[in-house]
Amino acid sequence: MRCSRSLVSAIVALRSTSSACRTGSTSGSQALQLLLEGPLSQPPAQHRPHFHELHSRHFNQGALPQAGILQTLAHLRTTAPDPFAIVKDELETVSERLRRSVLTEVPVLSRAASYFFQLGVEGKRLRPTMLLLMASSLSSVVPSTAFLAVDESPPDQHPKECRRRQQRIAEITEMIHVASLLHDDVIDNSDSRRGLAALNTVLGNKTAILAGDFLLARASITLASLRNVEVIQLLSQVIEDLVSGEILQMTTSPDQLVSLDHYVRKTFFKTASLMANSCKAIAILGGQPVEVSKLAWDYGRNLGLAFQLVDDLLDFTGSTKSLGKPALNDLEAGLATAPVLFAAEEHPQLRPMILRKFAEPGDVQLAQQLVFDSQGLDKTRSFAAHHAQQAADVIDAFPPASTEHAQKCREGLMAITSRVLSRTK
Amino acid sequence: MRCSRSLVSAIVALRSTSSACRTGSTSGSQALQLLLEGPLSQPPAQHRPHFHELHSRHFNQGALPQAGILQTLAHLRTTAPDPFAIVKDELETVSERLRRSVLTEVPVLSRAASYFFQLGVEGKRLRPTMLLLMASSLSSVVPSTAFLAVDESPPDQHPKECRRRQQRIAEITEMIHVASLLHDDVIDNSDSRRGLAALNTVLGNKTAILAGDFLLARASITLASLRNVEVIQLLSQVIEDLVSGEILQMTTSPDQLVSLDHYVRKTFFKTASLMANSCKAIAILGGQPVEVSKLAWDYGRNLGLAFQLVDDLLDFTGSTKSLGKPALNDLEAGLATAPVLFAAEEHPQLRPMILRKFAEPGDVQLAQQLVFDSQGLDKTRSFAAHHAQQAADVIDAFPPASTEHAQKCREGLMAITSRVLSRTK
Repeated sequence: MRCSRSLVSAIVALRSTSSACRTGSTSGSQALQLLLEGPLSQPPAQHRPHFHELHSRHFNQGALPQAGILQTLAHLRTTAPDPFAIVKDELETVSERLRRSVLTEVPVLSRAASYFFQLGVEGKRLRPTMLLLMASSLSSVVPSTAFLAVDESPPDQHPKECRRRQQRIAEITEMIHVASLLHDDVIDNSDSRRGLAALNTVLGNKTAILAGDFLLARASITLASLRNVEVIQLLSQVIEDLVSGEILQMTTSPDQLVSLDHYVRKTFFKTASLMANSCKAIAILGGQPVEVSKLAWDYGRNLGLAFQLVDDLLDFTGSTKSLGKPALNDLEAGLATAPVLFAAEEHPQLRPMILRKFAEPGDVQLAQQLVFDSQGLDKTRSFAAHHAQQAADVIDAFPPASTEHAQKCREGLMAITSRVLSRTK
Repeated sequence: MRCSRSLVSAIVALRSTSSACRTGSTSGSQALQLLLEGPLSQPPAQHRPHFHELHSRHFNQGALPQAGILQTLAHLRTTAPDPFAIVKDELETVSERLRRSVLTEVPVLSRAASYFFQLGVEGKRLRPTMLLLMASSLSSVVPSTAFLAVDESPPDQHPKECRRRQQRIAEITEMIHVASLLHDDVIDNSDSRRGLAALNTVLGNKTAILAGDFLLARASITLASLRNVEVIQLLSQVIEDLVSGEILQMTTSPDQLVSLDHYVRKTFFKTASLMANSCKAIAILGGQPVEVSKLAWDYGRNLGLAFQLVDDLLDFTGSTKSLGKPALNDLEAGLATAPVLFAAEEHPQLRPMILRKFAEPGDVQLAQQLVFDSQGLDKTRSFAAHHAQQAADVIDAFPPASTEHAQKCREGLMAITSRVLSRTK
């Protein structure tokens, strides 16, 4: 039965499907080889035992006790650098450019497109933070303070400096991300997002569709300005993956509905592809060799999967207030995420409910109860920790850092892997 | 008053705004100079008096009598080559690749995205026909019959042959065009398109949005495969222009509502930008010098404007059956197109109706009556003829044709300029 496949076989399946097929210029078999035999099994360049212990000690041995992992993470948070603080100033300039770039001559569009870029509501800013840290981690120089001034050049103008081109990747990634949120909100008839009313309910579906299209178009123009065909292809692939993920979610067969393998594939498309391909783009623009840009891709992919698994978890455990959206959103939308799929291995009565998408009265409450009465949440947490560990291993596998600042940024990327696990909203 | 500006001043305004701002690598002032003093006023390389007479003899002297122009066009249709026949076989291969490219692993998406690419319902196929003719018109060789086989390479693979890259421009242009139709249908709540039920009513808004997004993403990936940054920028600009046009239409101020200048600006964004930029992309990929690719852009822009003006005309004069969509669609959607704007110069009582978007009972019928009781339709036809003439002049200004086939294709491009005027659906 597909739903009862072990976690290990699910991960192997994931490695052989989701990742192998999306490596840009790499062939599928090369990517598979890299993932199965590659840098993750090599001795890490800089050993960080606490991360290894943190993420992997209980994995494949059953559930990771929640109290234990959270205690360890609490300790880490006091010692590891704050990843957001390292790039805070540069992030501000990227956000500011993003806000300005949507201020076109047509006011309603600016209002719509800038909705998600308002000061203070940019969401977690995880993606641009990760990308700026990745850029510095792999750089041989400390970025000049000149790059803290807002880039005021038009979107179709080629930035002369490498750092400016990398900042544009952060900008493009946010544009694509927000465009997909806007369209998803219309598609899902969502009524809240990030604690705000969703844009479609504020300005109507019409404007939400157009604002999303505008951001995609502006992202394409900005992308073209980078004059790097491989990078253009990587980010264009992200847009197609986002659509494919949404479609996969809409059109799942009964077998797929209860398949963890299918769930991971969809999650790669909807969340991890953007993070993987944008990290790779940063490395390529930084002039890194193929093997390092592949590592960057793998960091983004694993972080993306961990991020989404925790998101699915929080839909069960977080409150509406801290999450900024209703809890049990997924169940109510008929979606069976990792906690439910794991729980179904113990409680087969979840299967028919998954197949009918929790549509009968009482389904959502019963499913929730069965998830809590199973190892579903713990296994999801372990699965997330496994991917966070893989992301941390990638940082260890990077070639030696050129500067102290690069080393600090790597610690920031490491810290992100634990913050993703410990976040509560 | 903006609404009473003369046709001539409107055209001058058009030249100075819409075209000057969208010339890719050209500066606004250069473009303006080109348009005001450029090739259109130079002696044509190959004099074609019948086209000049046809399009310009009555322009700026008042209305062009409908019977006269149609008689002349009927004569032309019997002597000019059939532009669609010249590239019919190659067009088939482009359409076939288009159909196949949307056959992804997710069936519902294929169904949605291929909806507009079904055999026999591809619409007028004007765009890809124009582009293939443009490619041959400027080529020093007759395209090999090898290019009549369907290109089976994946969308992200760079085509080695120039002709294949040019075919991809035809493919990308149709993808962008159809994506915009899909999203516009959702935005406008349309219920018919090309004589078929609109996709949003068949498959739901959700799938229509996603299918549009899929086509835009696939267009971006295909575009990146061409490895030509200028071409990537040109076609990315088209996507932004399409959005800007739709937004302009949504958010018009009272002054703009009655302004012909604003109408032309919107029409450039919504229709002509795609044709202008794709023609220019064909010339660039064909290795043409800057001045020739600018001419190609100008052909597309003028043809696009003529095409849309006739479309607006047919909304008044065509029947539902021949148009494939309800007549008076624009009025009922609250839109004042060229015939109404011209009519308002004679009948000021149209102004308040335009401003309230024909929302009061009887507005649509009264507006229709006032349009018929004015020179609105004739002036629109003359305006369309003026732009068709400009497009024809561009072909005359091309450097001498290298082959007989290239010459024949130029005649095909000429013939398109008259067919656009004479079409009845």
